[in-house]
Amino acid sequence: MSPGRLEAFSDGVIAVAITLLVLDIHVPNPGGSLAHELGQMWPNYLALVTSFVTIGIIWINHHAMIGRLRAIDHTLMILNLLLLLTIVILPFTTSLVAEYVRESSGQHLAAAVYAGSFLVMALAFSATQRHILISRPGLLRTELSEAERRRILSRALTGLVPYAVATAIASLSAYATLLICMAIAAYYASPFASSSERPDQPTG
Amino acid sequence: MSPGRLEAFSDGVIAVAITLLVLDIHVPNPGGSLAHELGQMWPNYLALVTSFVTIGIIWINHHAMIGRLRAIDHTLMILNLLLLLTIVILPFTTSLVAEYVRESSGQHLAAAVYAGSFLVMALAFSATQRHILISRPGLLRTELSEAERRRILSRALTGLVPYAVATAIASLSAYATLLICMAIAAYYASPFASSSERPDQPTG
Amino acid sequence: MSPGRLEAFSDGVIAVAITLLVLDIHVPNPGGSLAHELGQMWPNYLALVTSFVTIGIIWINHHAMIGRLRAIDHTLMILNLLLLLTIVILPFTTSLVAEYVRESSGQHLAAAVYAGSFLVMALAFSATQRHILISRPGLLRTELSEAERRRILSRALTGLVPYAVATAIASLSAYATLLICMAIAAYYASPFASSSERPDQPTG
Amino acid sequence: MSPGRLEAFSDGVIAVAITLLVLDIHVPNPGGSLAHELGQMWPNYLALVTSFVTIGIIWINHHAMIGRLRAIDHTLMILNLLLLLTIVILPFTTSLVAEYVRESSGQHLAAAVYAGSFLVMALAFSATQRHILISRPGLLRTELSEAERRRILSRALTGLVPYAVATAIASLSAYATLLICMAIAAYYASPFASSSERPDQPTG
Repeated sequence: MSPGRLEAFSDGVIAVAITLLVLDIHVPNPGGSLAHELGQMWPNYLALVTSFVTIGIIWINHHAMIGRLRAIDHTLMILNLLLLLTIVILPFTTSLVAEYVRESSGQHLAAAVYAGSFLVMALAFSATQRHILISRPGLLRTELSEAERRRILSRALTGLVPYAVATAIASLSAYATLLICMAIAAYYASPFASSSERPDQPTG
Repeated sequence: MSPGRLEAFSDGVIAVAITLLVLDIHVPNPGGSLAHELGQMWPNYLALVTSFVTIGIIWINHHAMIGRLRAIDHTLMILNLLLLLTIVILPFTTSLVAEYVRESSGQHLAAAVYAGSFLVMALAFSATQRHILISRPGLLRTELSEAERRRILSRALTGLVPYAVATAIASLSAYATLLICMAIAAYYASPFASSSERPDQPTG
Repeated sequence: MSPGRLEAFSDGVIAVAITLLVLDIHVPNPGGSLAHELGQMWPNYLALVTSFVTIGIIWINHHAMIGRLRAIDHTLMILNLLLLLTIVILPFTTSLVAEYVRESSGQHLAAAVYAGSFLVMALAFSATQRHILISRPGLLRTELSEAERRRILSRALTGLVPYAVATAIASLSAYATLLICMAIAAYYASPFASSSERPDQPTG
Repeated sequence: MSPGRLEAFSDGVIAVAITLLVLDIHVPNPGGSLAHELGQMWPNYLALVTSFVTIGIIWINHHAMIGRLRAIDHTLMILNLLLLLTIVILPFTTSLVAEYVRESSGQHLAAAVYAGSFLVMALAFSATQRHILISRPGLLRTELSEAERRRILSRALTGLVPYAVATAIASLSAYATLLICMAIAAYYASPFASSSERPDQPTG
């Protein structure tokens, strides 16, 4: 299998998952005040945007990862499959936190599951990167120095920290967890993230 | 990342979003008169067709936009992601207007949200065009004169006006808003729109 | 826009629509006899298989149609969009006939809507073929004689007849309509259909 | 039609089906203990992961199969369509077993339907392989000895056995069936499966 086919299939799964996020936004039943009902749904909007941008960024990073490959092995296919599994469950964890963030009972657990699902996704991504960069560098298209490979991997591992913090902090405040997840998404979408990743992701 | 990959992913998201529109059309519960029940669902049919054609046209325009690129930068990827977000929410706003357009309470707001979601989509499209044509013309595949670039952008900006009108008019009549959205879709689908866009979208 | 991009987007929409058919098959609520409940759902199975094969065949035919093109014009893009719209509504009409085929009230109408949605799809396909073959043969990749072009179009038009019959006969018997739709799908999937289409669809 | 187009469409259908699996995981209604409710859903998690990995592996195998082709015939297109049909129903059978595995009434039947749906999928895959390798070896891109072709086919047929066992054993224990399906998925995802398939699936 060529890296291109693996990428096309992954793109398909990610595109479906990112679009299914909208199924979490339900039309309120007529009868009450629509403005009030739509206003009540703010956790759904925040969770939707946060998850959408986060999945969009993992898609960008996935691209950079696959773009470095010249070949694929069985382990990589399975690791990639597990990574896709962690992405596919995000519409569920997004719905969960949107539904429970204001509930007195369950809000901490729901927030922990939400941030935890991002943490697991980032772990699967790091494990896949590790397999490519450390265990099987022969899969890479171009020769990268070990220093360079370790630098890329350590950036992926660094990305785990904020999600671990967001997950841990859920026991204190579900809102704080949601806020951290939003901040992470905003950071990676900002030009700051862009310039720090430029060196090994030449565009064009 | 190559423009081709960005386009393939965008196509996937748009294809899923456009197909999810059908989930808004529910099978009536048996018991009553099916003909009556199906007839009652006319706002769903109108909203489905309007949104379907509108998304189809944004897809065509997205193609023309990406087709001019030879490279991509981080800002463009994020702007494109936000554009996709505005497309992904359309199945929700379509359901909303279909459900509320005949309700005495909520019809104006629902219509404003519907036309407003098209306006936001057109804004995201214009912002993406502006980034390419004005801020980073180096991303373009072929040299376009500044006059030509400004002409393409101004056409995108002109497209905002009817959606702004449709959104504003919702406070007067929800039906008028729906009618304007339908007229916009019909105009862009017509041969008139085609010929006015011919110069910079050669086919083949 | 190249024919390849039009085809890729169409493939995406058709792939989503054909997969959404499964959402019509619901898990019965626990409590009763599962075997009985699953047995009761036979109209859903028949309608699912019929629609799945029919969409699969329109996909094959769509491929042959796009494969003959070297260029695309605005009208073709819009006609193709309308064709996709007729495909996207099939999960709804499939659910409708599955739900109503055994109801004393509504079964005739539901069957007519089901066969009618196939008829409309076949009409949209024929209109698209007509545009390519008769109105704009310059879009074709290879020179086809007028006789050949008329032969391809007349085969598309011939395909309308059985769906028109199936729609008309719904007023007499909903089961007969379903049976005809199944027979049409089975015919096109059989080797007979294959050999009759061989001349202008060389494989490989 | 080229093998590449057949593969792209199949990838699309498989990507949608694998992602729809998440729709089976519902957010519990607020009110009770969320931890308890989420814990109660363990059959859903197991069934989701099992089906996800199984579909992922059939996707990998499908790739290897299509990758050997240089051309396609009508029968192959129809067989491939039937294979996709057996994949598209998996979100339903996955929901079914998750809902019923703990029910005193219906658990055996649900488990049989679940394993049976994998068996039918494996049968459709074997039938497609048989058509290519035995009936129409001229479709193959490279010359394979008859021994080699029979070896590939017999490996596909061998894959039927564990699913047949899992289906049969459902009459004794629904849990045993689920366990066998999980074990099959784990085996194919493991490096053991990889090395046994290496000879005719060179990567890269």
